[in-house]
Amino acid sequence: MAIPSPGYSITVRVEVPAAANATAALTTAVASTGGALTALDVAGSRTDRLVVDVTCDTRDEAHGHLITGAIAAIPGAVVRKVSDQTFLLHLGGKIEVNPKVPLKHRDDLSRAYTPGVARICHAIAEHPEDARRLTIKRNTVAVVTDGSAVLGLGNIGPLAALPVMEGKAALFKQFGGVDAWPVCLDTQDADEIVATVRAIAPVYGGINLEDISAPRCFEIEARLRDLLDIPVFHDDQHGTAIVVLAALKNALRVVHKSIDDVRIVVSGVGAAGHAIIRLLLTQGARDIVACGRTGAVHNGNEGMEPFRQWIADHTNARHESGTLREVLVGADVFIGVSAPDLLTGDDIATMAPDAIVFALANPVPEVDPIAASEHAAVVATGRSDAPNQINNVLVFPGFFRGLLDAHVSDITDAMMVAAATAIADSVQPGELNASFIIPSVFDAAVAPAVAAAVCRVAEST
Amino acid sequence: MAIPSPGYSITVRVEVPAAANATAALTTAVASTGGALTALDVAGSRTDRLVVDVTCDTRDEAHGHLITGAIAAIPGAVVRKVSDQTFLLHLGGKIEVNPKVPLKHRDDLSRAYTPGVARICHAIAEHPEDARRLTIKRNTVAVVTDGSAVLGLGNIGPLAALPVMEGKAALFKQFGGVDAWPVCLDTQDADEIVATVRAIAPVYGGINLEDISAPRCFEIEARLRDLLDIPVFHDDQHGTAIVVLAALKNALRVVHKSIDDVRIVVSGVGAAGHAIIRLLLTQGARDIVACGRTGAVHNGNEGMEPFRQWIADHTNARHESGTLREVLVGADVFIGVSAPDLLTGDDIATMAPDAIVFALANPVPEVDPIAASEHAAVVATGRSDAPNQINNVLVFPGFFRGLLDAHVSDITDAMMVAAATAIADSVQPGELNASFIIPSVFDAAVAPAVAAAVCRVAEST
Repeated sequence: MAIPSPGYSITVRVEVPAAANATAALTTAVASTGGALTALDVAGSRTDRLVVDVTCDTRDEAHGHLITGAIAAIPGAVVRKVSDQTFLLHLGGKIEVNPKVPLKHRDDLSRAYTPGVARICHAIAEHPEDARRLTIKRNTVAVVTDGSAVLGLGNIGPLAALPVMEGKAALFKQFGGVDAWPVCLDTQDADEIVATVRAIAPVYGGINLEDISAPRCFEIEARLRDLLDIPVFHDDQHGTAIVVLAALKNALRVVHKSIDDVRIVVSGVGAAGHAIIRLLLTQGARDIVACGRTGAVHNGNEGMEPFRQWIADHTNARHESGTLREVLVGADVFIGVSAPDLLTGDDIATMAPDAIVFALANPVPEVDPIAASEHAAVVATGRSDAPNQINNVLVFPGFFRGLLDAHVSDITDAMMVAAATAIADSVQPGELNASFIIPSVFDAAVAPAVAAAVCRVAEST
Repeated sequence: MAIPSPGYSITVRVEVPAAANATAALTTAVASTGGALTALDVAGSRTDRLVVDVTCDTRDEAHGHLITGAIAAIPGAVVRKVSDQTFLLHLGGKIEVNPKVPLKHRDDLSRAYTPGVARICHAIAEHPEDARRLTIKRNTVAVVTDGSAVLGLGNIGPLAALPVMEGKAALFKQFGGVDAWPVCLDTQDADEIVATVRAIAPVYGGINLEDISAPRCFEIEARLRDLLDIPVFHDDQHGTAIVVLAALKNALRVVHKSIDDVRIVVSGVGAAGHAIIRLLLTQGARDIVACGRTGAVHNGNEGMEPFRQWIADHTNARHESGTLREVLVGADVFIGVSAPDLLTGDDIATMAPDAIVFALANPVPEVDPIAASEHAAVVATGRSDAPNQINNVLVFPGFFRGLLDAHVSDITDAMMVAAATAIADSVQPGELNASFIIPSVFDAAVAPAVAAAVCRVAEST
């Protein structure tokens, strides 16, 4: 189901004869190989030759080569250079650190640095809580990863994870006004991760754990919550759970079903699956069956690690033990946070009438959303090229904005539920339908609504 | 020798009767109590009353109270509010993290975040050296402290040290274009500090250690240099040593003496003293006597820690064992990086003719520079209110600019000497005199000159 994406956009600089049909041949070459042309810029011109920058979206790297080959095959064409917009964008990184204070004159330096700064240090040494007023701690979050479970790429390590953490930091600022900093750890030992985050914590008002593999992520999060006096949030767990709950609330409204009545199948029992199940249970869900790679998780399995055991203890009351495909029969809701292409449209057809399908594996969902939509009432994915994109970007900027503004030290379920409700309610009743259960990630009203919801809960407790 | 400083600037909002002499009384009140008036702003006016914002520099907090009291004592005056410019400047901290890439449209998100970012991660996983091109590692430095030896404040801990590290980060950007981030560690255990910095290192192109007390700083720096493939620089040691060497080169030019002929007394055998002695020895200095709190360091002392022992082994060939005052007699150069008010003008008078005095204890020097200048040919301090301010700001922004640009992994003595020479040579021959041995910290040409010098050394080795 791959379609050309701006994430794989290339610019091919090509010299062609200055014939009347010169650019038409370029358009044809791109179109015939399935590229999506976005621009033809003439970069230079002579009487007999044109230099043209052909910019187009491609499906992937191989597709880019195919398109470039088609352009090169045009009679008289010479490809000068192929550049990749995504690589160009990343040159030098995606975030920077800037002074917020003037440093142009001696007086500036006397206040921001020595001798004036000594008084600020002294004030904080006497009243540590003043750090929230007089330093960046007030507005700053660490985005912490060990690079063990990055996107769909797996265990690529801390350095290769850095572009994701930079992107996250950029989104934190853009959507939440939060200063976020990448902390990419050169260790995957839980004790060392806990010790390191504890050691660097003074600068931060919150910790966002990111792309740390299960089950280590559960232990690391729990231990840091105990140790630190600032909130600790594992986005892959709680960010995902919050946005899934938001989408489910609205999907259930569309099909006129209630969370305490529906049969829910969750595919994937890693960080996201675990957190989704936990949050849905707090909201009254009574019939959840979770599936791992080997089928339904149930209390008859032996030797499960504690977090898997917790799922077995709290779900699957009927002790079903079949495959995903088997337990899906008759279910009202499918929530996939697992792997590509596990199901077909025919499998979705076995679900209850007015089924809800969230196929969130990225970039390739558990089931093709177009095939699923032939049999389900509501279909959502993690992708931007289908309706109902379920994306954590709707959660973390506003959620941390609220945590920081309310000086929260411990995140509660009530805050997560309030955030989910705020996201769901950002879709107005008149807008709600099967293709619009969740607001756009670019809806600027969502983050402030989430922040306000978190603050209300924090202030009422 | 305290004089009013903009680092202690206050604004007093006062309501006074609208008489013709209303503001004259305010001016008199400030002047009579020794404040330095910088502005009288009328913030509001009625027929009979004026609201005036009186802004003035003060010596310290007590002096601010004294001035405020004098204003309040003016007949008919009512002080409404006293605000402190330095505290106001620090509200919310001094640095921020900003996206360098657009994030307004779907296409932006597809490139900077998923799915496009996955290709960047993949490229770095395959070729780790590409992180220098495609992430912030290229331009980013960690400013690491444990808060154990902050300015003149001592062991105030990591949180209270944060304003200094923020200020340093702001200066890194302002003067060197370097993105620097504060890492304030909630531990003072050398093993934990080393482990933490090693763990967070992937994001950074260099480590700037800051305000870590001796002798732990020596061990921490040495171990990190061994462990990491990025440069590790302890500013209190090497930044100070470089700028002192720069100033000494020019001071020796002024008095027509040579470094291999002069007798040098160094007061202070902590981080700065140790590094200064090391660097001066590489430059041919042959007669150095170092003094600690108990007098001259010499090979007869027993039970010295290894770094003190190193000093004893490499200095004081005549095995002098007297007090600072005693060994200073006949010396050509005094370099103080120790404590306030250890010496008087009379002590300086016992030095050799054309003596050089660097009294760098901050904020109060080892000897009053005015008293010293009656007997010495060249006097420098760390203060901004006397000539010849010897300040690390001249070093670290340009030095790290060079290290990053040249992809340096290990700092060498040759780079430090080249940096010192570049700073010294930023004072043109026609500018050089006893009151101008070192360029202004606001001389924008210094950092690029230092960076270029570091790059030249890096590229020639």
